[in-house]
Amino acid sequence: MNIEMIRAAAQRLKGHVRRTPLLNSTFVDEIAGRRVWMKAEALQHTGSFKFRGGWSAISALSSEAKTAGVIAFSSGNHAQGVALAAQMHGASAVIVMPSNAPKLKVENTRSLGAEVVLYDRDTEDREEIGQRISKARGLTLIKPYDEPEVIAGQGTCGLEIAEQATAAGIKAADVLVCCGGGGLTSGIALSLEVEAPDMRVRPVEPVDFDDVTRSLAKGVPQTNSRFGGSICDAIVTPTPGDLTFPIMKRLCGAGIVVSDQACLRAMSVAFTRFKVVLEPGGAIALAAALYHGDQISGEDVICIASGGNVDADMISQALADYPCI
Amino acid sequence: MNIEMIRAAAQRLKGHVRRTPLLNSTFVDEIAGRRVWMKAEALQHTGSFKFRGGWSAISALSSEAKTAGVIAFSSGNHAQGVALAAQMHGASAVIVMPSNAPKLKVENTRSLGAEVVLYDRDTEDREEIGQRISKARGLTLIKPYDEPEVIAGQGTCGLEIAEQATAAGIKAADVLVCCGGGGLTSGIALSLEVEAPDMRVRPVEPVDFDDVTRSLAKGVPQTNSRFGGSICDAIVTPTPGDLTFPIMKRLCGAGIVVSDQACLRAMSVAFTRFKVVLEPGGAIALAAALYHGDQISGEDVICIASGGNVDADMISQALADYPCI
Repeated sequence: MNIEMIRAAAQRLKGHVRRTPLLNSTFVDEIAGRRVWMKAEALQHTGSFKFRGGWSAISALSSEAKTAGVIAFSSGNHAQGVALAAQMHGASAVIVMPSNAPKLKVENTRSLGAEVVLYDRDTEDREEIGQRISKARGLTLIKPYDEPEVIAGQGTCGLEIAEQATAAGIKAADVLVCCGGGGLTSGIALSLEVEAPDMRVRPVEPVDFDDVTRSLAKGVPQTNSRFGGSICDAIVTPTPGDLTFPIMKRLCGAGIVVSDQACLRAMSVAFTRFKVVLEPGGAIALAAALYHGDQISGEDVICIASGGNVDADMISQALADYPCI
Repeated sequence: MNIEMIRAAAQRLKGHVRRTPLLNSTFVDEIAGRRVWMKAEALQHTGSFKFRGGWSAISALSSEAKTAGVIAFSSGNHAQGVALAAQMHGASAVIVMPSNAPKLKVENTRSLGAEVVLYDRDTEDREEIGQRISKARGLTLIKPYDEPEVIAGQGTCGLEIAEQATAAGIKAADVLVCCGGGGLTSGIALSLEVEAPDMRVRPVEPVDFDDVTRSLAKGVPQTNSRFGGSICDAIVTPTPGDLTFPIMKRLCGAGIVVSDQACLRAMSVAFTRFKVVLEPGGAIALAAALYHGDQISGEDVICIASGGNVDADMISQALADYPCI
């Protein structure tokens, strides 16, 4: 993995990906006690940054592989990103999703033309299911994070951050990234290493799913004891990726661990102050900026708002429980 | 009023205004039966396009006038736009607002440093109150729409649309604009007349508050029989502006009239498909694109999503009453 792969992915994504805005608000700065910048990837096609990696991976396939089709496993955002990118490339897609994924994510993936295969998150192994169908039907497996072209695609978000931060007059900053398997985190870290070396990437994870934070602290991969039970469904992964961990170990600062309640509060803030809809996992970096400022240094903090595929009940609850005014 | 004033306003706004994205979604296209593009001005500073006009007007004042301070009357979006622009210019601001304006709008305006004067929308005349305080305290009155520099500021949104439409490969389109007094509508119409002459601006108004639609049909200004009672609080004005009506008469196509229910439905669509929070008046142009397609021509339609300053109860109701999946 290197910056050239990310630049090449950016070239392939040109004209197809949305350049998402870097938003700020004096109201939010006041809560955090420093300037907060939110990279609104929830406004990306399919409502999350995952379209970047999906497009990057599929556009890098041979025409034979595209014709044969692709398969992916995902709780819902990678699912939609791969489904739309496949549809736009004229490739068929099979997506393996947990049966308890948010309804919106399952419905959207189907509507984007993909064949959805549901599995039980508590008793079945999605990797095994993905590998089996991939082999049986000759489909290319597009892993959600441990895949170089996926990491390269997510890294294009970092290229945009470097440009937008320069335009906004931000020199040094902690860059908070929601972290599941580490595809987005490691991709952005590789971009900023070259394009904005005074910025430092910090993974952000939910309480009890802090495998990356603990892995970085100990220097070797750690595993979570639970596999489900957080509202941050998008970033609940058992352990850091084989490809992503060495990159994060080399480039990232310490992880930050955030409660589900703080994510709901941050969803309400993003809704009220930025007019952007975030899902819990998409709001976790903003939550870290707002409520864990003691673990952050510098005048500016940048947080990635990675996705907005949330069911209506969840956001209505967040607004009712944590009103901003 | 002419394009040069709008270009000059764009120069003054440079580096201060946000270039809001032009969003699309295959899900939304499917509802409308054509390609729908949404200019997300809810993502503008203060959550609506009104920051453009506020900044344009205040930045055009003499330094003496800035020092003396400004006054504005508004149901809430112009209020916040003027308050923030005044604060950023170091000018004091008095804002006259109806006592039944959304709580969020009143609180935000105060938090942005303005002195808020409340009045009763049913029994008092905001123009009279504004003029009286302006005279007594030597403040410059910044009218919400019948003011050339305000129209010029709103027109900068049209310059962006022309550029973004070209980049997206849109040649001709109806451009649907939520319409109260007509500041945004006439400003965009003036920009597109020069920069995208194959586009046609269409004002969109709430049922019972369709003064502009009827005025355009009859050729002379008409007045609404009611002064309140729509959930589209931002665009309830009694009659077209003296400056804005001649511009709209010369440049606009027929108006489109939309129910409150359709606005709530469109809010749910914008929430689910674009991850953007809209207030009812901010969703009315999208509602026209989605549910009044028989009044629109062409393969593409552009709609302005003008603002997102909505109280939580209202959006929770929209999501509950009109679920997208």
